[in-house]
Amino acid sequence: MAKDKKQPRPKAQTPKGFQDYFGADVTARNDMLRKIGEVYHRYGFDALETSAVETVEALGKFLPDVDRPNEGVFAWQEDADWLALRYDLTAPLARVAAQYRNDLPSPYRRYAMGPVWRNEKPGPGRFRQFYQCDADTVGAPSVAADAEICAMLADTLEAVGIARGDYVIRVNNRKVLNGVLEVAGLSGDDNEAKRGIVLRAIDKLDRLGLEGVRALLGEGRKDESGDFTKGAGLSDVQVAPIVQYFNGNKTYQRSATIRAVSGIRTAAEVLNAKGVDVTVLRNLRALIGESAVGAAGLDELEEIADLLAAQGYGPDRIVIDPSVVRGLGYYTGPVFEAELTFEITDEKGRPRNFGSVAGGGRYDDLVKRFTGQSVPATGVSIGVDRLLAALRAKGQVDHAAQGPVVVTVMDRDRMADYQAMVSELRNAGIRAEVYLGNPKNFGNQLKYADKRAAPIAIIAGGDEFDSGVVQIKDLVLGAEIAKNASLAEWKDRPSQYEVPRDQMVTRVRAILGGQG
Amino acid sequence: MAKDKKQPRPKAQTPKGFQDYFGADVTARNDMLRKIGEVYHRYGFDALETSAVETVEALGKFLPDVDRPNEGVFAWQEDADWLALRYDLTAPLARVAAQYRNDLPSPYRRYAMGPVWRNEKPGPGRFRQFYQCDADTVGAPSVAADAEICAMLADTLEAVGIARGDYVIRVNNRKVLNGVLEVAGLSGDDNEAKRGIVLRAIDKLDRLGLEGVRALLGEGRKDESGDFTKGAGLSDVQVAPIVQYFNGNKTYQRSATIRAVSGIRTAAEVLNAKGVDVTVLRNLRALIGESAVGAAGLDELEEIADLLAAQGYGPDRIVIDPSVVRGLGYYTGPVFEAELTFEITDEKGRPRNFGSVAGGGRYDDLVKRFTGQSVPATGVSIGVDRLLAALRAKGQVDHAAQGPVVVTVMDRDRMADYQAMVSELRNAGIRAEVYLGNPKNFGNQLKYADKRAAPIAIIAGGDEFDSGVVQIKDLVLGAEIAKNASLAEWKDRPSQYEVPRDQMVTRVRAILGGQG
Repeated sequence: MAKDKKQPRPKAQTPKGFQDYFGADVTARNDMLRKIGEVYHRYGFDALETSAVETVEALGKFLPDVDRPNEGVFAWQEDADWLALRYDLTAPLARVAAQYRNDLPSPYRRYAMGPVWRNEKPGPGRFRQFYQCDADTVGAPSVAADAEICAMLADTLEAVGIARGDYVIRVNNRKVLNGVLEVAGLSGDDNEAKRGIVLRAIDKLDRLGLEGVRALLGEGRKDESGDFTKGAGLSDVQVAPIVQYFNGNKTYQRSATIRAVSGIRTAAEVLNAKGVDVTVLRNLRALIGESAVGAAGLDELEEIADLLAAQGYGPDRIVIDPSVVRGLGYYTGPVFEAELTFEITDEKGRPRNFGSVAGGGRYDDLVKRFTGQSVPATGVSIGVDRLLAALRAKGQVDHAAQGPVVVTVMDRDRMADYQAMVSELRNAGIRAEVYLGNPKNFGNQLKYADKRAAPIAIIAGGDEFDSGVVQIKDLVLGAEIAKNASLAEWKDRPSQYEVPRDQMVTRVRAILGGQG
Repeated sequence: MAKDKKQPRPKAQTPKGFQDYFGADVTARNDMLRKIGEVYHRYGFDALETSAVETVEALGKFLPDVDRPNEGVFAWQEDADWLALRYDLTAPLARVAAQYRNDLPSPYRRYAMGPVWRNEKPGPGRFRQFYQCDADTVGAPSVAADAEICAMLADTLEAVGIARGDYVIRVNNRKVLNGVLEVAGLSGDDNEAKRGIVLRAIDKLDRLGLEGVRALLGEGRKDESGDFTKGAGLSDVQVAPIVQYFNGNKTYQRSATIRAVSGIRTAAEVLNAKGVDVTVLRNLRALIGESAVGAAGLDELEEIADLLAAQGYGPDRIVIDPSVVRGLGYYTGPVFEAELTFEITDEKGRPRNFGSVAGGGRYDDLVKRFTGQSVPATGVSIGVDRLLAALRAKGQVDHAAQGPVVVTVMDRDRMADYQAMVSELRNAGIRAEVYLGNPKNFGNQLKYADKRAAPIAIIAGGDEFDSGVVQIKDLVLGAEIAKNASLAEWKDRPSQYEVPRDQMVTRVRAILGGQG
């Protein structure tokens, strides 16, 4: 075509920061999401699927203050409006809860799964589109809703294949932390900025260490590059209870959690039957002093522990753990986190816990943006990619990679016969396909079967058709024999069988069963 | 907060042209797609999920020739590049087939399901985000690949719940039409524009009628509003074979199809055992005269019929039908279409066939844009919303709307006991939830259960706990009794039972079974 010369060929390239997912990577994720959805459904949660596109106005915190709102979201202008791809599933839920508030049941339990988009500089392991999987209850003020979500999270992890003992769900309450901040003299509107700095500092404990956080609570911190981050400017008297809170609990509670998860529980242990570390509770009651919000937070924690205990969720699955902070500013009550406790080997070969795969909490102000009325809400978000990686680490997703039985083509004119063979196999529920490339080079057909991870190849030429038989090649066994060629016991094992045509399906099924 | 006054509240509104999907609408679609995926997988197709975002360059026909590429796609600029939301699943496949051509098996069978986006003016029934579900084979030149996709489409329709006899897959070949165009003197590069006009005109036959199409083949057509559309400018001699082609076949073949689908097939019938209307084939051979491409097209059609017959797909499921055109310019060989033949009632109360739910064909030039090398490809796209609507019309998706058993709250202090009840129900696989709103007004709880379409409510207050029983209210039966309140036989039927606490799960299951 004449046009070809004018326009250069487009590059065949995934846009920067995006990914293509193939085969088992897609189906394993779908399988996992389906199992999660089944648990959510059983808990009375209803599916919700909003569109990928929202108005920038509805997304809220990304409102444009410059020429275009390119901070964090992918956005474009349409007439007078700005549209954008959603950056999470919570903002659309807040919009839906406001928009349909007269029609939805209240409380409204909903789950949502799907991609979200972040307009970030692409980097290693940082992607601009990824899946989220959320469950939230809107309109339930009672902590029974938070307890329910923790129980559901435990059931969900087990449903997808994480064994009991391989995870723990840790629960805390922001109100306890707020009580501590009150004791530190940081209550009131005029201290909002300082509270923000303190929360973000505590959330960086793992990275910065005790002294780093302490510096951020005080005057500020100079990092290795010499850059200075201004601190909250608290006095030593103010810093003391905060450090005592997160530092003391970090030490006490982590060890108590590990003891609980390990099942070592004696009369001398600090955990009571509800998974509450009574020493920690006693210390916290002392720490929050006269703070009413702090006391309310502790009461709520005990209530959550009571509810979970009544449903049989003991400290082997869910523990109260005041060291959980969670960074997001909008949490207002209980916060929780699911941590996988089994060990994996990191990139440097050192063993470490797999770590967090889900988290959430109560956020009572999101819907208010739209309606002006406060609506209580609580929810959890599962890190889909993290959880899938965990299932892979535990060997829970192999089966999905099963290739098809490949019927090879010896004689191009017998395509109808080969098609009849795959039909029979498929009708018997066996994944199967006929080779549809150029059949001339038979070696290419076997290479193709190899690339497809085919467990079996079917071979039939003129001789086979004349005698009413087919050749069945066990490719899994064939590979084993090739690998062990020097061993006597493998030498004479046949990996190819001639069977009557009408026994093909039966034999294929038997071989597949043996390979399983 | 002081800010509230400065910023007006955002509107809680779905962006124009987009939709929110709730509950069963989400799960019914997911169920259907899962069943489709199972068939595709059994046929050896592998899942592929590309990102929603592509470079505008890779999407191709929407390259920006003005300030910004807002024709048809949602696009935005990033540095020097334009990015856009994909408008179908074929363009990303072409990109992937080019990008990974050294790693993918060849032929490459892949399926993809997911939303696509169109930047169109929103209108009734026209949405800017909707699902597509595609299966394609890239790198297989043989029409065996086309036949396979037709067979798979038949299996897919039956797997999701369309009974045999309620659908027919009609197959044609663009080459036959090209043969006719050749006879009409429209071959060669310089007639490309005219061929485009002719194809689009034929595709409008249903809407414009024979005379309208004939006008577009000639000088042009004036519509009711007086607007004039310029025609292809063909002479009467050129128009004759084209009209004879589509008009003759439309009449002959539709009736033959209907006869075949109805199962009325006698020796006097025109369809042969392979679903080929021999009269039509004879007429077509005459019509295409000396055209080599036309003859090749007819040979391919017969080969497809052979292959399908060998696999047992007779004319009750798949027929050769030269009246199928399909609008898209890029088809180069076989084209096919799945039509649901059962009747529904249209908005004016008239019966009509449900119509097309899937279509596709061979397109051999899409990958070439990237690599310069021609790669044969064929595929099918299922209209997800249309097929789902068909399943609804056939009553195939009801069960998904099942609400949860609602455990009501008579005594706020016994929340742990109510939670234990739902736990037991859920552990028995029964969808259940406790009422988490303000329990003060019991009537609100029953209204809530009604809004949730709950089949059963569990009621237990102080008396019940003291006696170790619960009340089970059958809400489905209750509604029936209310509806038939005047009938004597309904009057004394109880819809509420008191049962021992430890028999709650058993009785709930029995009642649900009876409601089934």
